[in-house]
Amino acid sequence: MNTLKSFVQDEWVEGREPFATLVNPSTEEPLARTSTAGIDMGAVVDHARSVGGPALRELTFAQRGSLLLAWSKALHSARDELISLAMQNGGNTRGDAKFDIDGAIATLAHYAELGTQLGGLRALRDGDAVQLGRTARYAGIHLWVPRDGVAVHINAFNFPGWGTAEKAACAFLAGMPIVSKPATSTALVAFRLSEIGAGVLPRGTFQFLCGSPGDLLDRLGPQDVVAFTGSSQTAARLREQLARRGARLNVEADSLNAAVLGPDVEPRSATWDLFVADVVRDMTQKAGQKCTAIRRIFVAGDRLPAAQEALIERLAQVRLGDPVRSADVTMGPVSTADQLRDVRAGIARLASESQLVFEGKTTETKGYFVPPVLLLARDPEKARIMHTGEVFGPVATLATGADVAGLVRRGGGGLVCSVYSDDRDFLRKCVLEIAPYHGRIYIGSEKVAGQTMGPGTVLPQLLHGGPGHAGGGEELGGLRGLQLYSQRVALQGDRALLDAIAPEKA
Amino acid sequence: MNTLKSFVQDEWVEGREPFATLVNPSTEEPLARTSTAGIDMGAVVDHARSVGGPALRELTFAQRGSLLLAWSKALHSARDELISLAMQNGGNTRGDAKFDIDGAIATLAHYAELGTQLGGLRALRDGDAVQLGRTARYAGIHLWVPRDGVAVHINAFNFPGWGTAEKAACAFLAGMPIVSKPATSTALVAFRLSEIGAGVLPRGTFQFLCGSPGDLLDRLGPQDVVAFTGSSQTAARLREQLARRGARLNVEADSLNAAVLGPDVEPRSATWDLFVADVVRDMTQKAGQKCTAIRRIFVAGDRLPAAQEALIERLAQVRLGDPVRSADVTMGPVSTADQLRDVRAGIARLASESQLVFEGKTTETKGYFVPPVLLLARDPEKARIMHTGEVFGPVATLATGADVAGLVRRGGGGLVCSVYSDDRDFLRKCVLEIAPYHGRIYIGSEKVAGQTMGPGTVLPQLLHGGPGHAGGGEELGGLRGLQLYSQRVALQGDRALLDAIAPEKA
Repeated sequence: MNTLKSFVQDEWVEGREPFATLVNPSTEEPLARTSTAGIDMGAVVDHARSVGGPALRELTFAQRGSLLLAWSKALHSARDELISLAMQNGGNTRGDAKFDIDGAIATLAHYAELGTQLGGLRALRDGDAVQLGRTARYAGIHLWVPRDGVAVHINAFNFPGWGTAEKAACAFLAGMPIVSKPATSTALVAFRLSEIGAGVLPRGTFQFLCGSPGDLLDRLGPQDVVAFTGSSQTAARLREQLARRGARLNVEADSLNAAVLGPDVEPRSATWDLFVADVVRDMTQKAGQKCTAIRRIFVAGDRLPAAQEALIERLAQVRLGDPVRSADVTMGPVSTADQLRDVRAGIARLASESQLVFEGKTTETKGYFVPPVLLLARDPEKARIMHTGEVFGPVATLATGADVAGLVRRGGGGLVCSVYSDDRDFLRKCVLEIAPYHGRIYIGSEKVAGQTMGPGTVLPQLLHGGPGHAGGGEELGGLRGLQLYSQRVALQGDRALLDAIAPEKA
Repeated sequence: MNTLKSFVQDEWVEGREPFATLVNPSTEEPLARTSTAGIDMGAVVDHARSVGGPALRELTFAQRGSLLLAWSKALHSARDELISLAMQNGGNTRGDAKFDIDGAIATLAHYAELGTQLGGLRALRDGDAVQLGRTARYAGIHLWVPRDGVAVHINAFNFPGWGTAEKAACAFLAGMPIVSKPATSTALVAFRLSEIGAGVLPRGTFQFLCGSPGDLLDRLGPQDVVAFTGSSQTAARLREQLARRGARLNVEADSLNAAVLGPDVEPRSATWDLFVADVVRDMTQKAGQKCTAIRRIFVAGDRLPAAQEALIERLAQVRLGDPVRSADVTMGPVSTADQLRDVRAGIARLASESQLVFEGKTTETKGYFVPPVLLLARDPEKARIMHTGEVFGPVATLATGADVAGLVRRGGGGLVCSVYSDDRDFLRKCVLEIAPYHGRIYIGSEKVAGQTMGPGTVLPQLLHGGPGHAGGGEELGGLRGLQLYSQRVALQGDRALLDAIAPEKA
């Protein structure tokens, strides 16, 4: 069996026993094994800090951007291979695999372009200079400068391509050396993507740990950053551990994302059709294993029965199966046996307070397959599980109520909420009421119906992250994505000296 | 004895036994007593969330600003009274007291003016709109919206006026209701300032707890914010407690602020004189009880003896005593008996690794007086205590070394560093090397020598806070100060709808 290696101190090294095994979730067949046992995590951190950091900070934004572009292009050349790995190791349909791989390629290219735009600079101005004295001579500026440490990336199993690339793009452009750790179960794509990246990026700026991070986190300090995507439970442990070390932590965790259908939306209108298509896509894409997937559907007004009917009609068309064996499959399995167990248990919990109104079928006898499930909450104001227990599979709960914004807020903070309406008054009220609880709000309306990719698609231009339950983090959002890896510092003094120290334009 | 009250649910209430006693640190005479025992902290939080938050979010930025201006003006009318309270309860000289009170008045006025500039808006745009689709119609914007919770302010004993006002100005303008808690020992100024504020601000938007916060923090959740100024030890406890509750925490803690004298600076030049004046002011103002005070002085180049001589000459002119009794006193006592004990112990620890080269004198027999102290570190690269143990009094350690930026960084992150030089190459290298370790860097040079107030003066236009040792927080910095109290949210959809939901201009 193929043994995956880690990339540490600019060399590919194999771990030792015990190994973890990566499987094909459609067939349960083993694909590869990996381990980081024996790797000196202290040396990993030292190498990033002493070799990678200084090398990266010497580069201008444009130079960093051109390296990201080279990585993006190299991934594009290996696109078919990467898609095939995602289908094997992730149980992805071809479409799901493209979503992950093309997301990686596009995000790297987006940050490459931002680097080009910033040109010969090395530190980013934050806002305009302000006059502090009697004359314009005595002034203040604010800068974002790269932190003098290492960026540790802990990625989730669901997006081994995009997740690795989006974190890397932001840290690299900001000027911080990276130690990237994929979820072991689906590491095949992350491994290949990192192998390609390691061939392009300068010495020390990128390392890859294919398995457990060992005692890496206990070696971090106040200039280091950890960006974590995963469960709330792990996040809580990391918060405690890293608070003691003084390291900065960004968390992207569970999220009970909601879709809201406005009371003005007529069945079979463009906005209605967008709502139905978005909800079904975001329930079933990647078998519902998206942190941005829709988990709760709230119908404002009196069209709940029609909405339920339209969703079920579409969900019934989902073809579940092994994407590698049959090209007409539209939904694959969940990624691991653990996920299968968790999703089944989650559905049972949801069904204890809501009514199961649709459940798809599968004829598969092997693999981690979960047919799509729709539930109906009769009393969403009193329901608890639908607002708190994320089920990471093709499962959502439908409800209606007089105060849909209140129902949305009961999720306690989410990554994204989608609101479908063409009524400005409804939108203004609803969006502003839910805004403090979200990192992103997607407004589905007639005028954009043909152009959007739905709320579940994370775009590099817009923030990704959310408050409360979703972890309180912020990633992406164009240049905002660099802030996690930067220190904001004010400089005050003679304006001419400030401009000499940190020019405004290259 | 006068019993101070708390302002909860829009009423002034007295706590019950046990009371804490506020004293005059020059004479050790009791001034007042206070307690929050018996106050229902759950009701405090509910009142802020249910009455204050909605009322405040209804107001435009301009309306919020005009209320801050009213508060600022009302403080100005009570300026002499407030200065007198600061001299009695804080041991402040008249100049120290003005620094605190005028800082409060000016900061409120600054945020009032920012509110006026934002006019009829209620949510702040973050950056420009971006095109997301094939046409400009499908777009994304980012907004800062007020968090749907309560802002709890835990202030330090050293700036009862300015500290209370700067936190309140940012939270109020951002749109969050406030619960403000002063340090009990010097609460007289904060009490009077809050009494004046309570007469001006709308119902529920401002509450004041004159004493212990009781179980207040255990009642907070993910939409709430705590802004804390104080010790690293308390900060560590708060981090753990608030991480469990999901509340956002901003910390402004200890800081081993450094001053760096560039190798180009000739004795008795304008830059040299600025360095000497700034260092002595920032060692002795408020008896060194400033989080931004200079604790470490690094001379790059070979002018250590001249610098030492110049500093001692000035320090010897400090007149220590009770500012209430004698108008010619230039430094008062530290604020409490505990502070006196801590400062004395800190000086002893510093003297165990560095040489005491100057110690002032006092003839006072009562009160918490500490004469100014200057130490000289012979081997600052090996020294540990000077870089890690903040002594919150009129005490600093002088040193020289080949790598002054490296010495500065050994402080592990600070609020402010001052660099004195007119040499662009030296400044560029030094400032960029220390930038990731600071929230603010002050550059003292010939051209600004007549205009600056020194590194220890926190300006509302510039960030206040610092990474690592300093707590990792950010306050002030103009509109940046509102971000702590806001959620950043991306909105995507039809550009016309986005502009209807959250207009760019009022």
